[in-house]
Amino acid sequence: MNVLVVGLGLMGGAYALRLSKKGYNVYGCDIDDNSIRFAKANGYIIEGNKDPKKYIPKCEIIILAIYPKAILNFLTEYKDLFNDSQIITDICGVKSSYIYDATKMALPAVYCSHHPMAGREKIGVEYSHLCVFEGANFLIVPTKDTPKFAVDTLRKMGDDLGFSRISIISPENHDDMIAFTSQLPHTIAVSLVNSDRDSETKDYIGDSYRDLTRIAMINENLWSELFLENKNYLLKHINTFEHELDRLKNALANDDIDELKKIFKSSTKIRKEMEK
Amino acid sequence: MNVLVVGLGLMGGAYALRLSKKGYNVYGCDIDDNSIRFAKANGYIIEGNKDPKKYIPKCEIIILAIYPKAILNFLTEYKDLFNDSQIITDICGVKSSYIYDATKMALPAVYCSHHPMAGREKIGVEYSHLCVFEGANFLIVPTKDTPKFAVDTLRKMGDDLGFSRISIISPENHDDMIAFTSQLPHTIAVSLVNSDRDSETKDYIGDSYRDLTRIAMINENLWSELFLENKNYLLKHINTFEHELDRLKNALANDDIDELKKIFKSSTKIRKEMEK
Repeated sequence: MNVLVVGLGLMGGAYALRLSKKGYNVYGCDIDDNSIRFAKANGYIIEGNKDPKKYIPKCEIIILAIYPKAILNFLTEYKDLFNDSQIITDICGVKSSYIYDATKMALPAVYCSHHPMAGREKIGVEYSHLCVFEGANFLIVPTKDTPKFAVDTLRKMGDDLGFSRISIISPENHDDMIAFTSQLPHTIAVSLVNSDRDSETKDYIGDSYRDLTRIAMINENLWSELFLENKNYLLKHINTFEHELDRLKNALANDDIDELKKIFKSSTKIRKEMEK
Repeated sequence: MNVLVVGLGLMGGAYALRLSKKGYNVYGCDIDDNSIRFAKANGYIIEGNKDPKKYIPKCEIIILAIYPKAILNFLTEYKDLFNDSQIITDICGVKSSYIYDATKMALPAVYCSHHPMAGREKIGVEYSHLCVFEGANFLIVPTKDTPKFAVDTLRKMGDDLGFSRISIISPENHDDMIAFTSQLPHTIAVSLVNSDRDSETKDYIGDSYRDLTRIAMINENLWSELFLENKNYLLKHINTFEHELDRLKNALANDDIDELKKIFKSSTKIRKEMEK
């Protein structure tokens, strides 16, 4: 199977590396010559080029490992080269804002999005070999019109990449869930770190502060796009979180020990369920 | 040196175990006979009793490993047995609400508080051997009138217990700092878990959500007391955090990508400093 990876960054590189090892014929393109050279020198790709024109016609799968806004630009620019035996997919962390446009623009190719729930705090193909997919979720995000063969092909690819759990989820459920389980925690960690008013904090932090704030180190270009693309779901969850925070704050302000205990019991119960 | 540990729970038991190993003569008391039996059977204490009367007069250090509200009750009940060569200390996570009263009530003994910044999510002396003090902070919290010998004795004890960093901090700075680095993270984790409105969340969580919410499993009786005892500092930090959260929320609502990037750059910079 011929595969084109567009964007040889951390994740694109990890895809190229693992798919090559599994026997896929992998081609790559990137705006940075150095990334292409590195990927080729290390056997991640058979060959690569800044310009994908040469590879698009012969690849059965095109994987877009680029920023959300760049996806629609890619589809516009190269749409004349697509054919109906192709699947175009992307690894982006949000879906519903562009997936319906992308599906139309990719025609006659089939567009079927997915989300590899694994990452690293590093940037660049040089770190791709450190990506761990084992134990992680691979979410396939079809629309109601996506043909079954596309879902099946992505399922096989997720399996070949080494992901442990492969699920299917709608674009809307995906974005709602990602807003809560990933974007809201990042929002919180960033806000917590930015509310530090004391230069001596670092002398006294323990594991809890450290664990809570690790994800406050964030790639501002990627995450500002991801947040804005998923703005409505994220705002909804920030509001719910603030409501719960106010509930705790009011219990505290009113010396309401029974309400505090109730709040702590609830969080303990819900979180323990998650360990099962 | 004779030491009395009042409260043979997780932490009291860990103190007894480690001080015994270092050659201190350790006595213990607890409201639960089983805890005393366990501590004695495992060599954590020489002997113990529900009633501390027998041990108080002969001990140079009395360690109160009990809930904040129980500290003043203990001092009131046994004040006739204290003498001026004794140091009474406690391991409680908040300080300024009771430390000045305790200092007066302990007389003629010297009251000098401290805070071992280490813990486990378990409850009970049966888990005391799992407590790790190596790598952790031991904070001595004197008032401006605390005699030097008391601080020196606690410093030696912190060292014997195995703590890696021993610092001195005022009650007010301690409580302010603890409100930010420990109580606020717990507040956030609890509120995040309680704002989960989706029964399927656990199928999709990744490391960030897991790390952020581990401390939402919380002993409601202890923490409701700790929060209320430190109410003013904690409310201050919750308000600052909410201010930062609103700043991010407004940037998102207004599609202000430049402000979002600024916020992410700031958190990345501050958090990276902490790794140094």
